[in-house]
Amino acid sequence: MKRILISLLLFLPVFSAQAGKIVTDSLSSKILDAEVKFNVYLPNSFNDSEKTYPVVYLLHGLYGCYEDWQEKGRMKEVADELIASGEAADMIIVMPNAGGKDVHKVPNGYFNTPGWNYEDFFFQELLPYVEAKYRCVGDKAHRAVMGLSMGGGGSTVYCQRHPDLFSSCYAMSAWLDQKVEDKAPEDPSDRFYYTVHSVRNHSALDFVDNADKETLSKLDSVRWFFDCGDDDGLVTLSFQLHMKMKAARVNSELRVRNGVHNWEYWHLALREALPFASRNFGK
Amino acid sequence: MKRILISLLLFLPVFSAQAGKIVTDSLSSKILDAEVKFNVYLPNSFNDSEKTYPVVYLLHGLYGCYEDWQEKGRMKEVADELIASGEAADMIIVMPNAGGKDVHKVPNGYFNTPGWNYEDFFFQELLPYVEAKYRCVGDKAHRAVMGLSMGGGGSTVYCQRHPDLFSSCYAMSAWLDQKVEDKAPEDPSDRFYYTVHSVRNHSALDFVDNADKETLSKLDSVRWFFDCGDDDGLVTLSFQLHMKMKAARVNSELRVRNGVHNWEYWHLALREALPFASRNFGK
Amino acid sequence: MKRILISLLLFLPVFSAQAGKIVTDSLSSKILDAEVKFNVYLPNSFNDSEKTYPVVYLLHGLYGCYEDWQEKGRMKEVADELIASGEAADMIIVMPNAGGKDVHKVPNGYFNTPGWNYEDFFFQELLPYVEAKYRCVGDKAHRAVMGLSMGGGGSTVYCQRHPDLFSSCYAMSAWLDQKVEDKAPEDPSDRFYYTVHSVRNHSALDFVDNADKETLSKLDSVRWFFDCGDDDGLVTLSFQLHMKMKAARVNSELRVRNGVHNWEYWHLALREALPFASRNFGK
Amino acid sequence: MKRILISLLLFLPVFSAQAGKIVTDSLSSKILDAEVKFNVYLPNSFNDSEKTYPVVYLLHGLYGCYEDWQEKGRMKEVADELIASGEAADMIIVMPNAGGKDVHKVPNGYFNTPGWNYEDFFFQELLPYVEAKYRCVGDKAHRAVMGLSMGGGGSTVYCQRHPDLFSSCYAMSAWLDQKVEDKAPEDPSDRFYYTVHSVRNHSALDFVDNADKETLSKLDSVRWFFDCGDDDGLVTLSFQLHMKMKAARVNSELRVRNGVHNWEYWHLALREALPFASRNFGK
Repeated sequence: MKRILISLLLFLPVFSAQAGKIVTDSLSSKILDAEVKFNVYLPNSFNDSEKTYPVVYLLHGLYGCYEDWQEKGRMKEVADELIASGEAADMIIVMPNAGGKDVHKVPNGYFNTPGWNYEDFFFQELLPYVEAKYRCVGDKAHRAVMGLSMGGGGSTVYCQRHPDLFSSCYAMSAWLDQKVEDKAPEDPSDRFYYTVHSVRNHSALDFVDNADKETLSKLDSVRWFFDCGDDDGLVTLSFQLHMKMKAARVNSELRVRNGVHNWEYWHLALREALPFASRNFGK
Repeated sequence: MKRILISLLLFLPVFSAQAGKIVTDSLSSKILDAEVKFNVYLPNSFNDSEKTYPVVYLLHGLYGCYEDWQEKGRMKEVADELIASGEAADMIIVMPNAGGKDVHKVPNGYFNTPGWNYEDFFFQELLPYVEAKYRCVGDKAHRAVMGLSMGGGGSTVYCQRHPDLFSSCYAMSAWLDQKVEDKAPEDPSDRFYYTVHSVRNHSALDFVDNADKETLSKLDSVRWFFDCGDDDGLVTLSFQLHMKMKAARVNSELRVRNGVHNWEYWHLALREALPFASRNFGK
Repeated sequence: MKRILISLLLFLPVFSAQAGKIVTDSLSSKILDAEVKFNVYLPNSFNDSEKTYPVVYLLHGLYGCYEDWQEKGRMKEVADELIASGEAADMIIVMPNAGGKDVHKVPNGYFNTPGWNYEDFFFQELLPYVEAKYRCVGDKAHRAVMGLSMGGGGSTVYCQRHPDLFSSCYAMSAWLDQKVEDKAPEDPSDRFYYTVHSVRNHSALDFVDNADKETLSKLDSVRWFFDCGDDDGLVTLSFQLHMKMKAARVNSELRVRNGVHNWEYWHLALREALPFASRNFGK
Repeated sequence: MKRILISLLLFLPVFSAQAGKIVTDSLSSKILDAEVKFNVYLPNSFNDSEKTYPVVYLLHGLYGCYEDWQEKGRMKEVADELIASGEAADMIIVMPNAGGKDVHKVPNGYFNTPGWNYEDFFFQELLPYVEAKYRCVGDKAHRAVMGLSMGGGGSTVYCQRHPDLFSSCYAMSAWLDQKVEDKAPEDPSDRFYYTVHSVRNHSALDFVDNADKETLSKLDSVRWFFDCGDDDGLVTLSFQLHMKMKAARVNSELRVRNGVHNWEYWHLALREALPFASRNFGK
């Protein structure tokens, strides 16, 4: 007891650091016919105030789950630090499950596929539920989405299809398209078949190619950021999308940093992503 | 099976990233009368070569253990990335236990205390054993030490007392002195009593104050780096030591970045520390 | 002609970068009995809008002048880039002369000294004039001050004495105090005598030491950032002020980066300072 | 006098910073039939030693000249800082003129064109002269080349055609190819005609496409780094070359940072480039 007290005295910051907390919650989805878990990061101020918060949806990757961003990406430490220093806004961060180990034990992804209409679930069930329960402001100006790999693709496509709902998108090492025919599984009984085909059918590159003037104008109402490693096999997709968007006069930021498709990259990306979302809130 | 193959194809870097591996080893110490565990990071090239390597000793903090740097600090991902890009040298990284949960279930530290002569163990048993077994070059020019908190203090004091053995020292959020009387436990039956007193008795600040010209000259044969957060209660110690060393015309680098006494800080510090050690190898 | 056209085509960004411009202006000061020059950075949007802007006062150092931040610090390139990416707000940046070559050919500084009541000039003449002329919002929430060396001290002291006027202060390599007696000139006919004595009389460290509870509360309504090189002779002042403020429970950020007292340091500091001021506007 | 002394005392770093110097030199070229100027950065240690140094050739861009890297890029401050901290090696940095204002008042470039055999001049006259005069080691392991825009293209092509002479290449915002037919001037009396055509004829992309196995192996003996802004019209060239080299199993680093085709970008790039060259010396 004394020992613990002493060590606290020795190593305590001059002031206690502000620290948020992560709560695990779940939602019973009619659309998916499943109980869908999600983690929510609540900032330090949450319990002491009545105010409403901006919200970030932070998406995991293929074979991942709602726990990844904390367990592998240590998102709480990043959010705590950046909120304390003012580089990130006081915000709610929602990390929903999109398949993964505790639901169907298969990769399912962020799009509607036969028997798994996740996009419907996300916008019709999850978003209203979580934003009411956790005091989110609840408008485009105070909502952002970001994610890694399959979740980077999901973030991008969600903003392409719902530009009226998000102020910004930060896509990390994003799986934005899947055109190579022979890499897709051919057996529909394999759920991965649908995941791959849904990425192909929701190609973020095709979306920009096919966008008319009005659509491009809506796209430009979202702020876009693509961040992918120079040794990541997916870097071409981020590069191409950035260039297509620039050519279409839609704002876009691109960063290629050193790295591969791993958590070291995404951890550092999160340090850029939260400030990016924050400075685009309220505009 | 097919699914796994597909995902590998999809997300594989253009080339497989070079990846080292971590092995857990242990040494039966006569000096400590204990089996002491340690982790060793072996670079990607280790098994395919006969060459010898420079070595870094990477020390954990109070209440920590030899697994911390990987489990909490994800050191392998950092080392893999920096070695692949050439920012860090191909190197062996040794993470020894200095007490902690699997030995005496108490904090013990890096110095000699009654019944726990860890400094003797480190230099007389651990260092010769590990450097022979893992093909280290084995001279001052190819050996560095770094660590966090109590391990940052240990790194600093080891280099002060053995400047002929290390080319560089990188101390993170370092516990360099413990002068405040009333914070030390008074009961010698509490092992933490010895830890605190040993830090006081090995004050890195006093060492510089008391150093004669010849000692200062030896100190200047080591390259020094102190890195501590602006909201860390220990930052004054790093600042003072840096200033004392500058005043004594001993080289010293100081960085105060945003942060507190946590793994987010040390993870980022490691990204600076491995290149720092690397560029001072061989000089 | 054709040649110029071609090179433009070759190297043009995909879109023209947004670029602000710098105008040189001056004000006839009754208080100083002098024509005081200043540079103003106007953002790209300035001429196409009727809107009002937040304002940053960016102060030069001893022996410097109003042209330094552009000529030596290339502030326009930094501001253009950060405003275009959204990291800095659309803002007016005012760089006033505080003595220097085109006025009295002597160092005069930011404080009132016999015959040179610059602080009065700054708040009674310059600030109202420039904020009306260049469409500044004109309140505490949309005004910041930053500067280097003597200008870092000026920024700090202005915010200490006028906390109701500034939302943030970013002090680079700041000259915050001057206690060493024998370094001050003794001859009042030397204008440098007054500069040194005014820094001593306006010690930012003493100000915190002597502040009562109400004053500390006002100080905490400003956001503070101190940034000084690890090889800069002034780093102790920044460190001490940061620690005093933390101890008094006033918010404070400290960074010690690699470097000395030069423009390489201040150029990089500006890349942190403009975002810092921006994220504290409007709060 | 006293005033200067005082200010020196006030602002002096704890120790005087190590500072190199820049000398302007020239060479009478038989090949070009011109007096060709160049700047040389000599590190702090140069005059006090007899030792030999590694050398970096640092190339300017189209319409630029040998003075640009100091006057616009402030290379001396960067080199001083990085050498002092050990991040860059003690090195000679040579900045030759490649046309520009003091020679033929036209853009000429780094390749052989009718009447302007600059590549011959560079390797047959400049390199031997400067390396003998300024005590360079003079081998592949201790020689690097880097540059911006046209100089980034020059650096890349020099290393492609002379891989036995350089240990590393850092190409900033590099002009690596010029395929768009209608952008080239058609009148050979316009010297710019030759510049554009020489870039087309020395396409760095075609070089990799056409390289046989032995050539690729030689390319892999050089370390490559491409760094270009996300809003730079030339970024596609850097991206494509990086991907071609990865596909051909030649090492390559790529970074896309925020920015356009300007000195703010190149100044920051130099802070990465000198350490990159340094850690590849001697290998």
